[in-house]
Amino acid sequence: MHLLRLCHAPIVTPCLAGKVFFFAKKRKGARPMTHLFALSELPLDEIHRLLDEAEAFRSGRIWRPAAPMYVANLFFEPSTRTKCSFEMAERKLGLHVIPFDPERSSVQKGETLYDTVRTLEAIGVDAVVIRHHEDAYFEALRHAVGIPIINAGDGCGHHPTQSLLDLLTIRQEFGAFTGLTVAIIGDIRHSRVARSNAEVLTRLGANVLFSGPEEWKDETNPYGTYVEVDEAIARADVVMLLRIQHERHAETMGLTKEEYHARYGLTLERARRMKSGAIILHPAPVNRGVEIASELVEAKASRIFKQMENGVYVRMAVLKRAMEGRMEHGRMAEKWHVVQ
Amino acid sequence: MHLLRLCHAPIVTPCLAGKVFFFAKKRKGARPMTHLFALSELPLDEIHRLLDEAEAFRSGRIWRPAAPMYVANLFFEPSTRTKCSFEMAERKLGLHVIPFDPERSSVQKGETLYDTVRTLEAIGVDAVVIRHHEDAYFEALRHAVGIPIINAGDGCGHHPTQSLLDLLTIRQEFGAFTGLTVAIIGDIRHSRVARSNAEVLTRLGANVLFSGPEEWKDETNPYGTYVEVDEAIARADVVMLLRIQHERHAETMGLTKEEYHARYGLTLERARRMKSGAIILHPAPVNRGVEIASELVEAKASRIFKQMENGVYVRMAVLKRAMEGRMEHGRMAEKWHVVQ
Amino acid sequence: MHLLRLCHAPIVTPCLAGKVFFFAKKRKGARPMTHLFALSELPLDEIHRLLDEAEAFRSGRIWRPAAPMYVANLFFEPSTRTKCSFEMAERKLGLHVIPFDPERSSVQKGETLYDTVRTLEAIGVDAVVIRHHEDAYFEALRHAVGIPIINAGDGCGHHPTQSLLDLLTIRQEFGAFTGLTVAIIGDIRHSRVARSNAEVLTRLGANVLFSGPEEWKDETNPYGTYVEVDEAIARADVVMLLRIQHERHAETMGLTKEEYHARYGLTLERARRMKSGAIILHPAPVNRGVEIASELVEAKASRIFKQMENGVYVRMAVLKRAMEGRMEHGRMAEKWHVVQ
Repeated sequence: MHLLRLCHAPIVTPCLAGKVFFFAKKRKGARPMTHLFALSELPLDEIHRLLDEAEAFRSGRIWRPAAPMYVANLFFEPSTRTKCSFEMAERKLGLHVIPFDPERSSVQKGETLYDTVRTLEAIGVDAVVIRHHEDAYFEALRHAVGIPIINAGDGCGHHPTQSLLDLLTIRQEFGAFTGLTVAIIGDIRHSRVARSNAEVLTRLGANVLFSGPEEWKDETNPYGTYVEVDEAIARADVVMLLRIQHERHAETMGLTKEEYHARYGLTLERARRMKSGAIILHPAPVNRGVEIASELVEAKASRIFKQMENGVYVRMAVLKRAMEGRMEHGRMAEKWHVVQ
Repeated sequence: MHLLRLCHAPIVTPCLAGKVFFFAKKRKGARPMTHLFALSELPLDEIHRLLDEAEAFRSGRIWRPAAPMYVANLFFEPSTRTKCSFEMAERKLGLHVIPFDPERSSVQKGETLYDTVRTLEAIGVDAVVIRHHEDAYFEALRHAVGIPIINAGDGCGHHPTQSLLDLLTIRQEFGAFTGLTVAIIGDIRHSRVARSNAEVLTRLGANVLFSGPEEWKDETNPYGTYVEVDEAIARADVVMLLRIQHERHAETMGLTKEEYHARYGLTLERARRMKSGAIILHPAPVNRGVEIASELVEAKASRIFKQMENGVYVRMAVLKRAMEGRMEHGRMAEKWHVVQ
Repeated sequence: MHLLRLCHAPIVTPCLAGKVFFFAKKRKGARPMTHLFALSELPLDEIHRLLDEAEAFRSGRIWRPAAPMYVANLFFEPSTRTKCSFEMAERKLGLHVIPFDPERSSVQKGETLYDTVRTLEAIGVDAVVIRHHEDAYFEALRHAVGIPIINAGDGCGHHPTQSLLDLLTIRQEFGAFTGLTVAIIGDIRHSRVARSNAEVLTRLGANVLFSGPEEWKDETNPYGTYVEVDEAIARADVVMLLRIQHERHAETMGLTKEEYHARYGLTLERARRMKSGAIILHPAPVNRGVEIASELVEAKASRIFKQMENGVYVRMAVLKRAMEGRMEHGRMAEKWHVVQ
C-alpha cells in the first residue's frame, strides 16, 4: 500500500527510474492556483472585479466561508499597516489566523521558504500572505505549493494590495482612471509601489509622471515620464509620494532631511500650487517633514488615512478570491490517496 | 468633491489660509473620549463603578458588544501579566484582537506613536491598550485620536489597571478603604504603582505609609508618610511590596540581593510581626528572596496570585467602559463624509 | 476573614509554625493532573486511545468544550511545525489561545518558569503547552501547578506529541507495530525524538535499529541495536531520519555537509535499496542534502508532510485529554475559598 500525493508539481525534475520513487503529478483539469503575486499578472476585468468587491465590503457586505478556513501571515520584514490590515481583513471574513513569527520559527534553523509554506499547507492552512525582502521570492512557490499565496510585498518588486488600495482610493475620488494624471514622486527605483502602480495605472488609461532625485530614476520602468517636481505637482490630479525606503540612500546623495524636503518633498508651498480637487496619497509610514510637510498628512486634500481604511476592504476582496479558489480547487481532493 | 474627516482635532495648528487646506474640526457635542490614562483623572464614583463592574464579571456576568469590535495591544515594554491579562479580558468580552508586535512594526522604521495609533484607527481598531517606556506618552494622543486608549503603564508614571486590581483585592478583603493602613515598601521613586496607588488610596480614605531605601524616596509624592520598614509592616493592614524595577539601582546602592532583603524586604521574621488579618500584595513579577521571602509568595496572607485573577475582571470592566464610550461616540459618525 | 487556596501543593516545605502562615494543601481525592511530559509515563492502552482519538479527528470528528477554555503556548525555542500545529489544533477544538511571546515577557525580567505558569493559571488559562531548552524543565511544575502541561519538547529529553504523530503515521501504513523494523538514523545522542520513539516502539513490539556517527551513539538508550547505515536502511520498514540538531556537532567531527550525506545520509543510492513498501520519516525541519537527498523529501515513499498533517490530529487528541482532565478536576473547585 502506498500513498500518493496528487496535486503538487515537483520542485525538482524526477530523476529516478526505480520502482519505488515517482513524483506526484499535477491534478489534471485543475485551474491554476489563485495566487496574487503582481497586478501586472491580472487582466483589467479582474482588477475591476476586485475593486467592486472591496467597495461592496466597504458598504457593509458580509461574506464568510461555509466551513472554517485558516490563514497564516508570514512577514519577514517589519510592517504595521499591511500586517494589521490583513489581520483585520481576515477577522472580518471570519478566517482563523495561525500566528507565525519568523524570528521564532524554523526559518532561524535554515528552513527554506518552500518547506515552510509546504509545512503550513500540510498543517491545514488554506492560504498564506507573505512579505519577503527578496525580489520575486514567490517564483520558487508559484507551481510548487497547493495553497494560494498573496504577495504582501517582495523586495523592490511588487505590492499588489497596496496598488489596489491606491486604485480604490482614486476611483472613489474621480470615478474613473482615463485621462487622470498621477505623479509618483520620490525613490522610484527602489519602490515596489512605483513599479506596481505605474504599470496598472497606464493600463487603466491614466498618465503617469515620475519625479525625484536623478539617482533614483528607474530606467527599467517604461510606464512614466520624468518631469521636475514642481511641474509634477502642478499637473497632477493625484500626487503620490513615496517613502524614502532606505535612509542611507538619502545620505549617499549628501542631502539632509531638510534639503530633501526642500528639493523633492511636498512642501506647504508646493501644496498650494496643487490643482483644485487634486489629492495626496502616500503608502506610509510617512517620514514627516521629508517626503511631505507634517501639516499636510491630515490636510483636507490628503487621503493617506483613507488609503489605510480602503486597504482593509481591498484585502478582504483578495482573501475572498483566494479562499474561493481554494475551495474550488477542492481542499478534500488534495488529500493523500491510496493508489496501490 | 472633497472628503472631510469630521471627528479628529488637528495635531498642528492650522496654518494654511488657501482654498484647498482646512483641518478637520472636532465633532460638536461629542463627549470626551473614554480614555483611561491615570486613576487620578477619575472621580471616586467612577472608580467604584469600575470595581462594581469587575466584581460582577468575577461573579460570572457576561457582556458582549452588539457588533464585532476590535482591539490592539501595543506593548513597547516586556510584560507577561498585564499583557496576558488584557488578552484574556478581551477574549472573555468576545472582542477581536489584532496582533501588534512593536519589534516587527513600522515603529522600527521611525514611525511616531501618533501615526501608529491613527493607522490602527483607520484600519478599524476600536480601542488600543498601550504600555510605553515614556512618561505620559499619552499626552500626544489625548485629544488627537478618535478611539479610546487604555494606559497599561507609562514609564515611571501611571498604571491604572494595576491600581484598580489592587483596590479590588483590598475591597474584597476589608469591604472598604476608610481607616485602613497601607504600607508601600520599596522603590517608591521609580514605581508607577506607588504613584497611582498612594493618590487614590488617600482619596479613598486610607492612610498610606512609605518605606524603603533613602535613595528611593520620592519627594514629589505627597500621599504618604515615610517610616522604618519594621514599623510599616507592623502597622499595616495591607503590606504592598514593590518590585525592584532596575537591578542596577540596587547595585548603585552597593547592596547585594541578600542585603536588600535583610534591610528592606518582607522576611519571614518581619512577616511574623504582621497584624492578624493583614495581607500581602505585590504587582509581580516577584524577585523571590529580594522584596519578599520566597516562602511567603504563596503563604496564607498573600494575595499575590489573587491580584492577578482580579486583574482580568478589572480589565474587562475598563474595556467595557472604553467600548461603550466608543459606541456612544458613534463609530459610524466618524467616517469620512462628503462635504462639498 | 482569610482566603485559602485549596488545590496546589506547596513548592517549598512549610516552615512557619506561627498563626498566620499555612500553606495550601492538595485537594484530597483529586486525580493527578493530566500532564503529558513523556510517552514513557503513559501505559500502552492510553497511547492507543490517543491514536484512536487522533484518527477520529482525522476522519472529521468534532469535539468542543462545553464552556470557553483558554490555552497558552510557551515556546522558549524556535519552532514552526510544532508551534503552528498546536495553534491549528487549538483552533480546530474551538479553544481560545492567549498569545505568549517569551522575548516580550517577564521571563526577560528573570521570572521563573513556575511563576510564569502560575501567573497564567491565575489569569484563567486552562492548559499550557511548553517547549523549553532545559531537560525535564517540567519536574519543577509537575506537582506544583493546578493546570495540565503539555510538553512540546524539553532540551535533549522528550517530545511526546512528535512520537505520537510518528506512531500514527506508522500505524496508518502498517496497521500494527509488532515485528516492524524501525531504523533511527543520525544524531541519536542529542535527539529527543530518538529517545522518545525508541522506548515506545520497543514497548509496542517493534525492533529498533540505531545508526549514525560513532560520536553520537547514546550508551544510555537501551532500546535499539547499532548497525551500519547501509544495513539499517536495507532492513527497515521505517527509515526514520533525525535532524542534525547542532551543526557545530557535525563540524567537530570534521565533516562537510556533503561528507555527512555520503556517509550517513539517505542518498538516492541508498534509497534504491530500501525494502518495497518501506517508508521515510523525518521530524523536520529537513536539512536538504544532509540527512536526506533533497529529491527524496517528497518522493513516493516519504511520509514527511503526512507526518505534519497527522501532527495536528494527534495534538487535538492530547489537548482534548488535557481539557477533559481540567474539567474533571473542577475548575471551579480550585478557586479561592473562605476558610475562617
